[in-house]
Amino acid sequence: MAEKITPRTEDFSQWYQDIVLQAKLADYSPVKGCMVIRPNGYSIWERIQKEMNDRIKAAGVRNAYFPMLIPESFIKKEADHVEGFAPQVAVVTYAGGKDLDEKLILRPTSETIINSMFAKWIQSYRDLPLLINQWANVVRWEMRTRLFLRTTEFLWQEGHTCHATLDDAEDFTRKMLKMYHEFSENVLAMPVVSGMKSEAEKFAGALRTYCIEAMMQDGKALQAGTSHNLASNFAKAFDTQFLDKDGKQKHVFQTSWGVSTRLIGGMIMTHSDDKGLVLPPMLAGTHVVIVPIVPKANLAPAVYEAADKLAAEIASHSLVKALPYVMGIEVDKDDTKQAGWKFYEYELIGIPIRIELGPRDIEKGQAVFTRRDKGVKEFIPLAELPEKVGAELRAMQAELLAKARAHRDQNFHEVNDFETFKTELEAKGGFFKVPWGLDRAAEDAIKEETKATLRCILLDDHFQPIQTKLPCFKTGKKDGNVMAVFARSY
Amino acid sequence: MAEKITPRTEDFSQWYQDIVLQAKLADYSPVKGCMVIRPNGYSIWERIQKEMNDRIKAAGVRNAYFPMLIPESFIKKEADHVEGFAPQVAVVTYAGGKDLDEKLILRPTSETIINSMFAKWIQSYRDLPLLINQWANVVRWEMRTRLFLRTTEFLWQEGHTCHATLDDAEDFTRKMLKMYHEFSENVLAMPVVSGMKSEAEKFAGALRTYCIEAMMQDGKALQAGTSHNLASNFAKAFDTQFLDKDGKQKHVFQTSWGVSTRLIGGMIMTHSDDKGLVLPPMLAGTHVVIVPIVPKANLAPAVYEAADKLAAEIASHSLVKALPYVMGIEVDKDDTKQAGWKFYEYELIGIPIRIELGPRDIEKGQAVFTRRDKGVKEFIPLAELPEKVGAELRAMQAELLAKARAHRDQNFHEVNDFETFKTELEAKGGFFKVPWGLDRAAEDAIKEETKATLRCILLDDHFQPIQTKLPCFKTGKKDGNVMAVFARSY
Repeated sequence: MAEKITPRTEDFSQWYQDIVLQAKLADYSPVKGCMVIRPNGYSIWERIQKEMNDRIKAAGVRNAYFPMLIPESFIKKEADHVEGFAPQVAVVTYAGGKDLDEKLILRPTSETIINSMFAKWIQSYRDLPLLINQWANVVRWEMRTRLFLRTTEFLWQEGHTCHATLDDAEDFTRKMLKMYHEFSENVLAMPVVSGMKSEAEKFAGALRTYCIEAMMQDGKALQAGTSHNLASNFAKAFDTQFLDKDGKQKHVFQTSWGVSTRLIGGMIMTHSDDKGLVLPPMLAGTHVVIVPIVPKANLAPAVYEAADKLAAEIASHSLVKALPYVMGIEVDKDDTKQAGWKFYEYELIGIPIRIELGPRDIEKGQAVFTRRDKGVKEFIPLAELPEKVGAELRAMQAELLAKARAHRDQNFHEVNDFETFKTELEAKGGFFKVPWGLDRAAEDAIKEETKATLRCILLDDHFQPIQTKLPCFKTGKKDGNVMAVFARSY
Repeated sequence: MAEKITPRTEDFSQWYQDIVLQAKLADYSPVKGCMVIRPNGYSIWERIQKEMNDRIKAAGVRNAYFPMLIPESFIKKEADHVEGFAPQVAVVTYAGGKDLDEKLILRPTSETIINSMFAKWIQSYRDLPLLINQWANVVRWEMRTRLFLRTTEFLWQEGHTCHATLDDAEDFTRKMLKMYHEFSENVLAMPVVSGMKSEAEKFAGALRTYCIEAMMQDGKALQAGTSHNLASNFAKAFDTQFLDKDGKQKHVFQTSWGVSTRLIGGMIMTHSDDKGLVLPPMLAGTHVVIVPIVPKANLAPAVYEAADKLAAEIASHSLVKALPYVMGIEVDKDDTKQAGWKFYEYELIGIPIRIELGPRDIEKGQAVFTRRDKGVKEFIPLAELPEKVGAELRAMQAELLAKARAHRDQNFHEVNDFETFKTELEAKGGFFKVPWGLDRAAEDAIKEETKATLRCILLDDHFQPIQTKLPCFKTGKKDGNVMAVFARSY
């Protein structure tokens, strides 16, 4: 039997940790800040990888793998990059029985090592665009860590592309941001706000950083993915040049973009409840569990036979109809004899659909159907179940998104002055849409005073900051203001 | 245009390197001993991962992820393990701006960190067997490296399982070895010899190591996968215990088993030729390239239209019929106008089937079909091509294995005395099956004198060493001898 899950209203942070540990998604490791991703959590990551890989490949990007070890001198080649990452790096100084001549950094991100190869591979405009992605582990030394959300080592994908013009790079940066936005909503059922990071919050080495920001159930923001236009910053540092059609040598223009295992944490804090994990069907390894109810031992054979038959029928039912993107519906048939007490565990680990089947149900030609997110039992004729399972999985995926969107919209406030912002932030939390004067000192002051940060500058359909004639909510500055979102965040 | 590939007969080693670099499978990185796996190479790894994952999951094993960083003290807990791996480790001594209290090792393998978690997770016999696998990068500081075959950092899968009895662990060790054997032959089309490692060559910390050994075209051996029965060696070091049915606390019995990106190197050296990569269809990302031949610009639309139609027909043809394990047949339509000169490149990168289609072919309702491994052009009616493609992919997969098996058998010698062994090894290379006295000093002496090593002790169907009454080929010892294979190796 599992321990009790702390209710969200009592302690949201503890609730999150309880779910991660008790649903066996991840565990603390003996290495400070590093987590172990357990099979229940890793299967979610595998689903994320599959769906993301399909989208990455559809964009013409190919997977590759670059060394994890980066010469210390590489990190120093791009001035902003080293300033941003130097405090967080882990360093190999000794290997193969002796001190290294040059220290090696464990990649915190791979722009530098990848550019050293791009510089070698790219000769002419014919080699562009060059579109590469890698799935890898990265290491950033973090002071405060939290399972999935912020760990010293984490898993991610990092895309790195080279283009002939800044416009091409900008287009691709936006394209991947849009892909992340669509992925987050359609796969994770996690609504996000797309926008642009401030100068203070942009990637170390980027010209411009776009992001998707999700709202957790406690109203805090989670940065769920970023896409950077690097312009020629790394290309210049590594002399990544190409011979253009006009016969001139030029530096390439680049992008990079990534999402990580943090998405799993975001998904948990978006959908789960006080009974445990609520998993969007698109991310479930097992979609349905069938629980045979056996009140007396002599009834077991008939019940198990009926359960087997039902499992086979559900599994063989048209998969594409069931859920557009999932390859197959996995069905687990519970074969323990004390199935009843396991309901708790199935709720805890978030199996989307539970079907109970006992001798009386079989007599009546029915079973008891329960969707994890609703928790309401329904008696459904056996013949209708395979169709019902598919329909309910589709519905659950859509309804989880709709529910999360409603929550996000309810907690998305528009305020125009700092005092109201402070009061409402304290009272209600959530996202705050404000007129913003793009002032770095004011941004720092807001963070210092309220712990809220500028999550993103809101953009129109052409990716231009949304202008406003309202005065800046913090400084009162009147002209040249844009709309931005502030929130406390993970 | 690519450079010339060195012929195998001239310099086998250079031939291998030429193929890897020119087919853009991998490249040298600026970090000594670390390689970059380029998209053409990584797509092979993705196919290997897919096929291997299917088999691993079918064995009831679930994927997980453990930290890359291992406390130095962990490595030292198992005496043989530290002796084996200490010289090869890379060490993080500095992170987050300060010297670490305890140094962290980059995993050379994960028995230690994983046991620290197993010890926490396992309570009772009900938790067993516990079957875990991870796909990860590992680091072993190597003096002499070679692309794919031996690199400082490499990618692999490492399975780690816990069992209630030594017999259960032994059974699982053998099961995974058999799986590797089947995988190697059916997916890589690479025949292997299964056997047991000597005490000198077994895994540092194992009771017993089984292996599969493949023969390259130059007659040298490549260790392609290993499966270890660890008994309770790591369980004792980490106190990984369970409460057994009899109410007693006992140490678990464990296995570990792995294959790595080295398989790609083995596959290349098994099948490729002087024109470049020959890729078993099961590993190909693109199975067929259609090359439209356009002698005059005004003929282009008709040729391209016919090529598009053919590509669609091939792609939609029953995929399961085409090749039992591959999800789909990928078809690339070449749309460059100077297609002719690209033949060379398609051969270089190993696309299994090339179809040329010109205006005259279209008039005659045919196309020119060439299988990469045969290199013989055939004129095939367009209507027959979709069926032909599937049949030829199946045939190619089978024939590559048969060809490699024939080569292996031709170079598999049985000798009973050391002088003949030396002479034949020098003259012909290959594998040598010999009567063997299990003498460590003799094993060292053979290696010293001939550079050949004991690849494996041959086993019968019950995994028992094959006994022989012949005297040991090196020492002349008469009793208690077994049959073993010696060869020079990568």
